[in-house]
Amino acid sequence: MNFQEQMNGYKQQVEAYLEQLPMSGAPEQLKEAMRYSLLSNGKRLRGILTLSSCEMAGGSAEEALPFAAALEMIHAYSLIHDDLPAMDNDTLRRGKPTNHVVYGEALAILAGDGLLTHAFEVMAQSAHPRAFDALREIVKAAGIGGMLAGQTLDVTMQGTEPNMDLVRDIHQGKTAALLTAPVTAGLILAGASPMQTESGRRYGYHLGMAFQIVDDLLDLEGDPELMGKTLGKDEEEGKLTWPACVGVEWARQDAEDHIRHAKSALTVFGTRAAFLQSLADFSLHRAQ
Amino acid sequence: MNFQEQMNGYKQQVEAYLEQLPMSGAPEQLKEAMRYSLLSNGKRLRGILTLSSCEMAGGSAEEALPFAAALEMIHAYSLIHDDLPAMDNDTLRRGKPTNHVVYGEALAILAGDGLLTHAFEVMAQSAHPRAFDALREIVKAAGIGGMLAGQTLDVTMQGTEPNMDLVRDIHQGKTAALLTAPVTAGLILAGASPMQTESGRRYGYHLGMAFQIVDDLLDLEGDPELMGKTLGKDEEEGKLTWPACVGVEWARQDAEDHIRHAKSALTVFGTRAAFLQSLADFSLHRAQ
Repeated sequence: MNFQEQMNGYKQQVEAYLEQLPMSGAPEQLKEAMRYSLLSNGKRLRGILTLSSCEMAGGSAEEALPFAAALEMIHAYSLIHDDLPAMDNDTLRRGKPTNHVVYGEALAILAGDGLLTHAFEVMAQSAHPRAFDALREIVKAAGIGGMLAGQTLDVTMQGTEPNMDLVRDIHQGKTAALLTAPVTAGLILAGASPMQTESGRRYGYHLGMAFQIVDDLLDLEGDPELMGKTLGKDEEEGKLTWPACVGVEWARQDAEDHIRHAKSALTVFGTRAAFLQSLADFSLHRAQ
Repeated sequence: MNFQEQMNGYKQQVEAYLEQLPMSGAPEQLKEAMRYSLLSNGKRLRGILTLSSCEMAGGSAEEALPFAAALEMIHAYSLIHDDLPAMDNDTLRRGKPTNHVVYGEALAILAGDGLLTHAFEVMAQSAHPRAFDALREIVKAAGIGGMLAGQTLDVTMQGTEPNMDLVRDIHQGKTAALLTAPVTAGLILAGASPMQTESGRRYGYHLGMAFQIVDDLLDLEGDPELMGKTLGKDEEEGKLTWPACVGVEWARQDAEDHIRHAKSALTVFGTRAAFLQSLADFSLHRAQ
């Protein structure tokens, strides 16, 4: 199986699981608004990372599915709340109108809250012996010292002078934290050693930093049709991006360096790391 | 020690714990917005219920503190998001301007998200042997089949014809679920039997239903100064309340019935139930 086939296989596993995910007791409108964003043709990178990391350390992808789904739900919630008029005020996401455009702001806020809470509910229902450890890893990444720290700085520091340390903090929080947790949670579920888990953490960090730099570059130079969203907004709104700090050429170079570091972090896993190493290369060269 | 002294003792334990709760890694502005709502002179009913239920079944209040704090954080998050302009658009809460009035909408959304996520982070850090079970109980109550179901119906059904079944569903979700979880989680932490936990669930349900009816009555007839918020808004905005369904007199009678049921649900605990039974009476006669 080549890389692209493996990638599609994992993606389909995640999609199928999300598609049939029970949302018992939720009012129809809430369920609909949650599913609108959750099932909207995402890359499923967080889900794919969870399953493949778990398998890399000898675990079963099947058992990691609730955690892959939880990470996709947390990602979807963060996008819904980010897109709100009071935040980034985006009307287009993945080529579709954003949640509040379709369901109104009140339901969009609740759908985000619902996806975040349901992520923990799904994980809490897992009978996996290391479920609580994986949940702890994920909540920390999503939390006020992780993703929410990055998002807060992103919102509050908008328009200030670009500064490398600050931008690094923002990117680590808003992007790298939630790309690292799938890897470390997957490894924890597989029963990996602490040393292996820390290697996964280094991989996730560098992958995440590269991913955000590429995102910033695509906002400057990407194809709006392929990206499925309005581009050029970062510059217009004074977002703190890596290209704004160091220029486009150096930013591209930094992304390449991060990917090299990501790949070398996994040498401890030998040939089993092949998929995640290819995924790192793929992230660098993506056009969407 | 009389009831009021016990009540104050539990309340002070909760307050002291919340006051010193670590929020490591959070940007200052996020921390400030979270603490503004979390430490704003609430009744701490959810925290008090957690500690006292745990003690009723022979557990230690100390060990239940992270869960008491988590429930107070979930309550605070729900109020912040509820008060947003797109939701209930409230500007006054507990006698103070609401979160978005002080910090702006973007930070208020993030502070709510932060409190919800931090609730799970704090619980996930507990080393209590039944921590995961208590977390599971709490996330279900806060989730899309619990509190969020009630809030969704509350928002989407506003202005429709009052209907007893619907109003019961709304109250069970938006109020009773998050007053039941402290009791059941406290009991689970204490190692109570499933039968005892179910008795606690009945107590919480009836306490919650009575609590919401009293809330609706206070919105009609309470003292705005004591309540610390704008009153009379329910009727104005066509909120579905119990008095709107059955009239003020019957609503009062129903609240009394719920409190009688709540108290009798605890007979299985004998004299150890005295505090929670007094708390039920107290909830009925509160003026704020």
